This record gives sequence, C-alpha cells and structure tokens, in this order.
Amino acid sequence: MRSKATLDAWRARVDAVLDETLPDAREAPQRLHGAMRYAALGEGKRLRPLLTYAAGAALGAPPGSAAADALDHAAAAVELIHAYSLVHDDLPAMDDDALRRGRPTVHVAFDEATAILVGDALQGLAFGVLAEAPAPASAVAAAVRELARAAGSRGMCGGQALDMAMTGATSTLDDVAAMHRMKTGALIEAAVVMGGLLRGAADDDVVALRRIGSLLGLGFQIKDDLLDAEADTATLGKTAGKDEAQGKSTYVTLLGADGARSRLEAVGRELDAALQAFAASRAPDGRTEALADLAAMAVRRAR
Amino acid sequence: MRSKATLDAWRARVDAVLDETLPDAREAPQRLHGAMRYAALGEGKRLRPLLTYAAGAALGAPPGSAAADALDHAAAAVELIHAYSLVHDDLPAMDDDALRRGRPTVHVAFDEATAILVGDALQGLAFGVLAEAPAPASAVAAAVRELARAAGSRGMCGGQALDMAMTGATSTLDDVAAMHRMKTGALIEAAVVMGGLLRGAADDDVVALRRIGSLLGLGFQIKDDLLDAEADTATLGKTAGKDEAQGKSTYVTLLGADGARSRLEAVGRELDAALQAFAASRAPDGRTEALADLAAMAVRRAR
Repeated sequence: MRSKATLDAWRARVDAVLDETLPDAREAPQRLHGAMRYAALGEGKRLRPLLTYAAGAALGAPPGSAAADALDHAAAAVELIHAYSLVHDDLPAMDDDALRRGRPTVHVAFDEATAILVGDALQGLAFGVLAEAPAPASAVAAAVRELARAAGSRGMCGGQALDMAMTGATSTLDDVAAMHRMKTGALIEAAVVMGGLLRGAADDDVVALRRIGSLLGLGFQIKDDLLDAEADTATLGKTAGKDEAQGKSTYVTLLGADGARSRLEAVGRELDAALQAFAASRAPDGRTEALADLAAMAVRRAR
Repeated sequence: MRSKATLDAWRARVDAVLDETLPDAREAPQRLHGAMRYAALGEGKRLRPLLTYAAGAALGAPPGSAAADALDHAAAAVELIHAYSLVHDDLPAMDDDALRRGRPTVHVAFDEATAILVGDALQGLAFGVLAEAPAPASAVAAAVRELARAAGSRGMCGGQALDMAMTGATSTLDDVAAMHRMKTGALIEAAVVMGGLLRGAADDDVVALRRIGSLLGLGFQIKDDLLDAEADTATLGKTAGKDEAQGKSTYVTLLGADGARSRLEAVGRELDAALQAFAASRAPDGRTEALADLAAMAVRRAR
C-alpha cells in the first residue's frame, strides 16, 4: 500500500484533533464528558476522516500543509457523527448491543441516559467543530449542509429507521440497497465530498467525488455483510453473526456468499474506474493514491 | 401588548417554515417522518423562534421583509433543537414523562427507538436548515457555531446531564443556576443572538443581545419553577408538581415561593433596563417592542 505512512499520520492527526475538540473529562458535567471521550476516542478504523483527508489531498492539500487545517475540522466532524450514531444504535431500544470496538458499549460502561446524551452532544459538537473550519465561509456552510443531509432522516437516521423496520421482515435487494445507502453510504459519501468542498472543489470534482464516495460506501457495506456472516466476534471487535440472529436481510442472505462476493468485485471494478478517471482529470498537484488505497481497504478489509 | 399581531404573524410564519422544512409523512421512512412532524409541529409557545425574529426586527428586519427570510431559517433551527430536546428528555431512561404539550410524548405515541431517532434527525435538520439561510456565509457559519455551542455538552445537553445528576441530591442555588443556564438558558440566549448575527449585528449589539437573552432565560426558568410548584397539569399541558415528586432542588424549594417571586421581579427589572438601554442605542430603524413583549411574557406567563 503506497500511502500507508500518510494514512497513519492522518489517523494520528484526527485523533489529536478529536482529543483537543472533546471537552476534558474533568470539566463538568464530568460523567458526560468522560463518556463522550470514551465513545469517540476508542479504537476505530477512522475510515471516514481518512476519506476526508484523502479527498482533500486529491485536490491538492498535501498532508501536513496549512491547507490541510480546514480538513481537520471536517475529519473530526464526520468521525463525531459516526461515533454518536454507534452509541445510539447500540442502545437497548435500538440494536441492544453490549460490545463495540472490543469494549462495553456506552450504555453498558456508563448508563442509558448518559449514552443518549453522549450521542446528542457528539452530534452538536460535530457541527460546531465543522463550522469553525478555517476555510472560506461559503465552503464551510456548504460542508455543514452536506453533513446535515447525510446525518438526517434522509440519510443516516432514516437508514437506521428502515433497518429496524426491516428486521425480521422479508426485504428485497432494492430495499436493502436503499437502506444501506442511507444508513452508512450517505455519511461515507459526505466524508469524501466535504474533503473536496473545503478545498474549494469545482462542481464537476464534487460530482466525481460523490460518485467515488457512493461506490465506496456500497462496497464497504457488502463487505460488512460478508464479514458479519463469516468472521468471528474477536476479529470484528463487535458481535458477529448478528444479522442472521436478528433475521435481517443482507447482501449475503439475498445473494448468497458467492453472489455477494462477485457483487463486491463488480463494485470494486467500478470504483477503480471512477478513481482512475478522477486521477486523470486532476491537475498534477492532486494526489489520489490515498483515496485509492482507502477504497481498496474498504472493500478488502478483514474487519 | 403592543406587538401581539406581529408575534402572531411570526408564530404562523415559523410554523409554515417548519411544515415545509420537515419531510412529508408519506416519504419513507414514513414512521420516522410522521413522528418528527408530531414532535415539532404540535402546540407550543414558539418562544425561541419568536425571540429570533424579534432580535432580527430590533436590528432592522421589519416583519415580512425580504431581510426577514434568513431569520426564518434560524427560527426553525432553534425550534427544531428545542423539539428534539423535549423528545429525548421525555424518554424512559431520562425524565420518563408520558405527557408533553397536552399530548402523549413521542415514545408513548410511537415507540422508544423512533423517539431516539426523531430527536437525532431533528437535531441534524436544525443545522441543515440553518446552513441554508440566505445570508452572508460568514453570518451563517457564526450562527451554526452559536447554535452548536448552545446545544452541546457545555449547553443544553450538559445541563440535562447536570439536572439528572442533581435529582434526589441536595443542591445549592449556585448549582441550580448553573444547571439552568446550560439546560434552558443557553438555547434561549442563542435564539436571541442568532437573530442578531443573521442581521449582521455589530459586536456590541451581539453583546447586548446576549445579555438580554441570558436574563430572559433566567427569568423564564424561575417562572417555570414557580409554575411547576403552583399550576396544575391541565394548565401547563405537562405534568405539574414533577420537581417536588422527583426531589429536585429548584428556585422554589431553595428560596420559597415568595423568595422565588421576588428574585423573578429583580430579574425582570434588570431585563427591562437592558432592553431600554439596547433600544436607546439602536438606530431609528430598529424596533424593540416585540423583544420587550416577549421578555414580559417569559417572566409573567401562566404556563
């Protein structure tokens, strides 16, 4: 992987930004702030913030440059939204899960009321840190609109509602695809698009980045369904085999494991083509290796 | 009340904006969208959006003018944040309340998972509609920062966490004041300040509006404690006597009803003075009657 060092540096960078953005656990209300840090700073792939940095780099924001500072804010914002959604999805009234990223979920480690407030406060913090990005205000406002659309009832929250409604019911492949496009695809897409917006991407670049993000989200999800069916809990760091236990329709239950794998390969090829077209259209200052490596990781990861 | 017709027109206006901003209940996921509308469009005083309009009018955005269009977005945003907070505060793991604005709470009328998602989606929608305000992007970004600060762990969410931690415990007047400043004061203050920001308020006007919003929030809360202790459930449209039943320290339990009333009167006098100073400093195009009427309503209301 050509960009491993760059990705490691960005991962450390977003963790540092999150550490600084999240209130200190000694600041009142201490329990809430401690739980917010527990939820957002634990182990994690940091796929979404890495995508934001990579999209920015593709448009000419070299890692470590001053131009990358605005990306820090979008990277932290998208990870905070992701972290909040995990906390709320794990709640007893939702997916009722006790394990996340190899640790007790927030409502288990703390309590249910705190978990609700942690999610609420992380979402607010996400928009706050994004709105503080040192970029032209019009780009900042566009990024806020992008994130809000991805997180709301036509995106992530709506996808979770569809997912719950579909649990135990018979669903078509179209239903499952539409649900995932909202539940996980929208935020992954926004992560890529925001990286472009904050680097002043032209409209056609935003369209190209949106398509890359959308395909990447789709590939990520098919891979997720395959992992849930085939990997074990220790490898995943979250409960494996949950889809089947909950009677959920997935790419695997609807297409079979082989069918899901060949669908994933087809998406991977489309994604490669979209990335190559984007790389070819960019000026020489754009660096798309990291975006390509992340795309490969998303569809070929082990957990 | 000099501005009754204006306030009624603004109330109708923000309701129309909310109606248009909220997804149609026939759009999937229907249950989520129906519940979002139930939560945000029910009866309500609309104090916060009215404050936003009134602050804008004080800076020269006559009701119904094109300049007032940006205020629509901030008014809707602050009401959506308020509505989301009520839905989550009423959850079984939080205040566990079955009645709100005279109707079953969202988790009772729908279910708990839907109520969690309704709150989450309303918060995202709030930031989205605010970021679409037709105002200079720098003012929009400043308004987003203001709202995020007020809604987060150093504002509303943090106040709710403190409130829950204080339930059943002995608290001082300082504790209670700090909790309310975060739980309800911060958002009321932001409602006033955002109206100014979107009208291009100068720094000293923002400071003046912030002080007015802060005093108004304080007066509102002391009045709230008095109403909880003295009014009945039918009048309030929410469960009365809850503070005492839950063993909460309030302005009434700490100061007695007479003490709370005289404290409220003192706050009302400070607020009048702040409003008069602000009115005197404004150019002739500013109209502060509505702001003054809202201040009077907040501290003298019957429910």
